[in-house]
Amino acid sequence: MSGLERLLETEPVVVTAGVEVLAGALEAQSVEVRRTEWSPPAAGTEAALALLAASPEVAEANEVAIARLLEVRPHLVDVVPAARVIPALTERTFLHAGPPLAWADASGPMRGALMGAMLYEGWADSPEDAVSKLEAGEVELAPCHHHQSAGPMAGVISPSMPVLVVQDPDTGGVAYSTLNEGLGKVLRYGAYAPEVIERLRWMERVLGPIVGDVLRRRGPVDVRSLIAQALQMGDDGHNRNRAGTSLLLRTIGAALVESDIAPVADRSVVYSFIDSNDHFMLNLVMAAGKLIVDAASGVEHSSLVTTMARNGTEFGIRLSGTGDRWFTAPAPLVDGLFLGSFTAADANPDIGDSAITETIGLGGFAMAASPAIVGFVGGTASAAVQRTLAMYEITMAEHPSYQIPILEFRGTPTGIDAILVARTGVRPQINTGVAGKVAGVGMVGAGLVEAPMRCFVDAVNALAGGVAGI
Amino acid sequence: MSGLERLLETEPVVVTAGVEVLAGALEAQSVEVRRTEWSPPAAGTEAALALLAASPEVAEANEVAIARLLEVRPHLVDVVPAARVIPALTERTFLHAGPPLAWADASGPMRGALMGAMLYEGWADSPEDAVSKLEAGEVELAPCHHHQSAGPMAGVISPSMPVLVVQDPDTGGVAYSTLNEGLGKVLRYGAYAPEVIERLRWMERVLGPIVGDVLRRRGPVDVRSLIAQALQMGDDGHNRNRAGTSLLLRTIGAALVESDIAPVADRSVVYSFIDSNDHFMLNLVMAAGKLIVDAASGVEHSSLVTTMARNGTEFGIRLSGTGDRWFTAPAPLVDGLFLGSFTAADANPDIGDSAITETIGLGGFAMAASPAIVGFVGGTASAAVQRTLAMYEITMAEHPSYQIPILEFRGTPTGIDAILVARTGVRPQINTGVAGKVAGVGMVGAGLVEAPMRCFVDAVNALAGGVAGI
Repeated sequence: MSGLERLLETEPVVVTAGVEVLAGALEAQSVEVRRTEWSPPAAGTEAALALLAASPEVAEANEVAIARLLEVRPHLVDVVPAARVIPALTERTFLHAGPPLAWADASGPMRGALMGAMLYEGWADSPEDAVSKLEAGEVELAPCHHHQSAGPMAGVISPSMPVLVVQDPDTGGVAYSTLNEGLGKVLRYGAYAPEVIERLRWMERVLGPIVGDVLRRRGPVDVRSLIAQALQMGDDGHNRNRAGTSLLLRTIGAALVESDIAPVADRSVVYSFIDSNDHFMLNLVMAAGKLIVDAASGVEHSSLVTTMARNGTEFGIRLSGTGDRWFTAPAPLVDGLFLGSFTAADANPDIGDSAITETIGLGGFAMAASPAIVGFVGGTASAAVQRTLAMYEITMAEHPSYQIPILEFRGTPTGIDAILVARTGVRPQINTGVAGKVAGVGMVGAGLVEAPMRCFVDAVNALAGGVAGI
Repeated sequence: MSGLERLLETEPVVVTAGVEVLAGALEAQSVEVRRTEWSPPAAGTEAALALLAASPEVAEANEVAIARLLEVRPHLVDVVPAARVIPALTERTFLHAGPPLAWADASGPMRGALMGAMLYEGWADSPEDAVSKLEAGEVELAPCHHHQSAGPMAGVISPSMPVLVVQDPDTGGVAYSTLNEGLGKVLRYGAYAPEVIERLRWMERVLGPIVGDVLRRRGPVDVRSLIAQALQMGDDGHNRNRAGTSLLLRTIGAALVESDIAPVADRSVVYSFIDSNDHFMLNLVMAAGKLIVDAASGVEHSSLVTTMARNGTEFGIRLSGTGDRWFTAPAPLVDGLFLGSFTAADANPDIGDSAITETIGLGGFAMAASPAIVGFVGGTASAAVQRTLAMYEITMAEHPSYQIPILEFRGTPTGIDAILVARTGVRPQINTGVAGKVAGVGMVGAGLVEAPMRCFVDAVNALAGGVAGI
């Protein structure tokens, strides 16, 4: 009996590709269906994709860009006031997360954070005063990503805030991020109550100087090594940073015992503050990430994604080969778990530079290393593994240092190729916190989101325009 | 066409159960074979197993015993000199790992550790002097397990050593273990060089008093919570304790900054000593384990395994329902990874009380939580998951606090039932360190070992004797 005859003898099993309505209709008629996950290439990009696929310049550029991304060795060297190291902040300027943004377009949590920064810097007497001054354009707004820095959620960096200084000893390159404030009512989620401002002042007066002294005392901390170890301990480097925070605290603890820059009581509180906040490591990963993506930027013709960032209104990406140009789309809503009595109706669209973790092979790309994260962002451990596996479809490399034990120590999928995203229809997976959409509310949840396809389609078309002009 | 006819139309696939020689012979003839893991019940126990299976007393006793095992809430409360809390140590006595042992039967690493303890206590002037005094019986030897304590590897506890004090606030029950010395040339692996003795003296003079002061200053540390968190961070609680050690250090760090019992330099070195030793948590897990298994002991007719311990010569177990009686077999060799130029030929048979971790649902039973451990003990991440899955076959419960994220937060297999071991032929999986067989060498590797079946067969037969007499 031939295979074809056997096919007719038995019940048919239908394999469906992509179109859910067909699979559903078959199942309604009791047909056994096996779904494959497949999406057609994004519409309108066929010509651009064909051109890019045939281009040796693109292939060569991508080899250069991904090699640069992988070879950066970020070290935490100091904590200093932002204005001392970020020239833009010596003017009346605030940095913020995501692509460029005007006050008029800012979402609730972004507005709340900017208002809080006004109060913190003493540039406004009240929330209302802050709003009127921000409306009047008295403070310049600029993306963190334009100034060697990255900030979680609203990502506001104001001149007096202490920042982590991360440096590559090989190149001298530097990048910055603020110190993490903890969870709940915090500036980066748009809260600006007096307790929020008071905490920021304590961070400026006590936390920053002590951690800076401790770092100068013990010497640089190898951040790549910390991240690599943390992935073996169930972190994803984005929303689960319990291991990284623990290892960082282990690394600086002895120097904190020894430090004589501040009274014992202050140093003890600094220790407890870091211990009480499992997200403390996040900002360090982000500063390291900024150093890494900046090193990979500016390689002509490369389709490597060097920025994914959201300002609460728009989601924006940049490619290594398309210079400083942003490709944006409306920020999507996050599919999440909500805190207490909050619901999806309270959620602001996706916000923050923290998708820089996914950009360097962590976060949603490393969820297989972090099954326990599903307690924070939702879903199952099995789905977390599947998310990581899907990301191998759209990345250029498996990270040599960031390994996933449960996948037999396979490297995390690293270096998003915008061409692969447009061609496969597989969108980058991001796990993230969720801010309340009303200014002042703060955190309302955490969850999962996919980068909007339009950013990648536009970027690929722009890249093809450059290649066509070779 | 019927199912039977279809069977004849297609190539046969053979499912084999247990006997490898059959599967191999089929495969040699190109037959597709699917193996199932199955072993016949241990020989000679059929009657005992039948009697025990029919006994409601055994079922009831096991319910009581496993409930007691699960409800213990170990808290680390203090560090004090051993002789202050273990009455036996006020006489000229050493405690050791595993079942009772005479000097004449002791293996190399056990002899090395006992000799080192003689030098440390100042009871001998030289290794030779120590040997002659131990041969002459000048020091009493007793199992840690007989004195509310547990010790890794040789497990020697001498009067001056500081011990961790673990207490259940509900019952006031207490248990003890030494402080972990680190890896390499250390007493518990049988090394007794001057550096080993010097480190023990520093632990007595500096480490013990400082950690004790810190604990009294901050209050009790909830060990069950630490272990539960550590399992979500890739620990198994036996040979991988990087997360547990990190969390413990986080927990006591602020008090260590504050402590004024000792100079800053000493406190800084204490911090660095703990930070440099990812096994520091192991001894705390073991002390907690001892508190847990003692609470579950002495339930008449229960087949719950309350002790698995090795003295380097014999492997011994005890059941809740058979009192203080040990059931022993020769200690097996460990299938391991060896350090540097060491090989299996350098290895002593299995040694240490640390299999108490497996007895309470950790270690080899929790390896699915700890895929990264295979870098230490060998094998693949996938095999580590399989080992845990196999242990559900021989255990009474899934631990409500100790969850394995990658198994969708299923509780670890906890509470070994000797009846199930004898009936299924599935032996408890232990992952463990390996000591050099020559006294003084120290650690030579780490690996995997299975508890000897004879211990369980003998224990089940003894238990059946008690039930028959009801």
